[in-house]
Amino acid sequence: MKLQLALDTLTLTQCLNLMDKLKEEIDIVEIGTPVLLEYGLWAVREMKSRFPEKEVLADAKIMDAGEYEASQCFEAGADIVTVLGCSHDTTIAGVVKAARTFKRKVMVDLIDVPDVRQRAIEVDRLGVDYVCVHTAFDRQSSGQDPLKELEMILDVLQHAQAGVAGGVKLATFDAIASLHPGIIVVGGGITNQPDPKAAAKALKARM
Amino acid sequence: MKLQLALDTLTLTQCLNLMDKLKEEIDIVEIGTPVLLEYGLWAVREMKSRFPEKEVLADAKIMDAGEYEASQCFEAGADIVTVLGCSHDTTIAGVVKAARTFKRKVMVDLIDVPDVRQRAIEVDRLGVDYVCVHTAFDRQSSGQDPLKELEMILDVLQHAQAGVAGGVKLATFDAIASLHPGIIVVGGGITNQPDPKAAAKALKARM
Repeated sequence: MKLQLALDTLTLTQCLNLMDKLKEEIDIVEIGTPVLLEYGLWAVREMKSRFPEKEVLADAKIMDAGEYEASQCFEAGADIVTVLGCSHDTTIAGVVKAARTFKRKVMVDLIDVPDVRQRAIEVDRLGVDYVCVHTAFDRQSSGQDPLKELEMILDVLQHAQAGVAGGVKLATFDAIASLHPGIIVVGGGITNQPDPKAAAKALKARM
Repeated sequence: MKLQLALDTLTLTQCLNLMDKLKEEIDIVEIGTPVLLEYGLWAVREMKSRFPEKEVLADAKIMDAGEYEASQCFEAGADIVTVLGCSHDTTIAGVVKAARTFKRKVMVDLIDVPDVRQRAIEVDRLGVDYVCVHTAFDRQSSGQDPLKELEMILDVLQHAQAGVAGGVKLATFDAIASLHPGIIVVGGGITNQPDPKAAAKALKARM
């Protein structure tokens, strides 16, 4: 199991400084969509050049032009790039093609996919590395259950590893970790805590 | 009808120089997703400051954190921001909320939405300004028919204007223009032509 830190609502300087403090606890550092929107791939370049030993994930949420956009991310130094589960198979296959060329990895984000189980089966066949259930930020008060979705995909994935993201907190962490997904993504559960270092340490210790 | 120029695979300097040549023909200049990925919102800021009289669209393809990410785009000077039709209603409502705060506009991109007609009805009720049918770049050889999809949404939209994007060329332009959508989006049909100025003029003359 790897712990992924999602950096979503910070400036790039804040992201780099926070990562400096947390680097022992974090396996994968995610340049979140709002940070990518603000700074572009410069944010990925900066993070990777400062922490070359860490895996950097670009949360580009690719929806089209899969091979082209994934190649942009990999050229900038991303180790993992995200593509939306609701995009067409051709787009996901394009991202996989780019990943094979650059020898990097692909995560499919199942955010807002209507049939999570069925889509996990389909994208698994496309040769992706990770399939991630994701409770949207805009739905975190809706009662959507990431644990149930995680169980659903763990049940069907043949090749890809599972990931789980969206509102993961200390309270829900043990139940998630007991299912042994490949990646657990935590954002505010670390970054919004009074002591992010202590929060990251506590989560890492439970994995 | 407005003509929107999609700038997708150029450097920012090339985008600005091209827009300099085409500004008389173009109503809306789109900072395409790959350009936004590369440069971040700096691309929007540059374009808007250079062409303040033009509408600038940020093709952010928002999928989550609707109000937050749309506000980022509007703060950078975008007049219109895109949100994915396959995102949750809460996300689209968040983008609409930000647009009302900043007095700007929202375009829903129906790319890869399974039931275009039904989703157009739903997002129209959320108070968006434009609903755009969009043949994905990754599917432009699949025979998907933007004209049929455009007819479908024109039939149901009560408030929003319709847009059409994806592989629009001179050959298909007249049939599309005859339906009078609010926006016709052209990318390669202008930027990849030997004489982009002549291509843009020819298209604008047919509107």
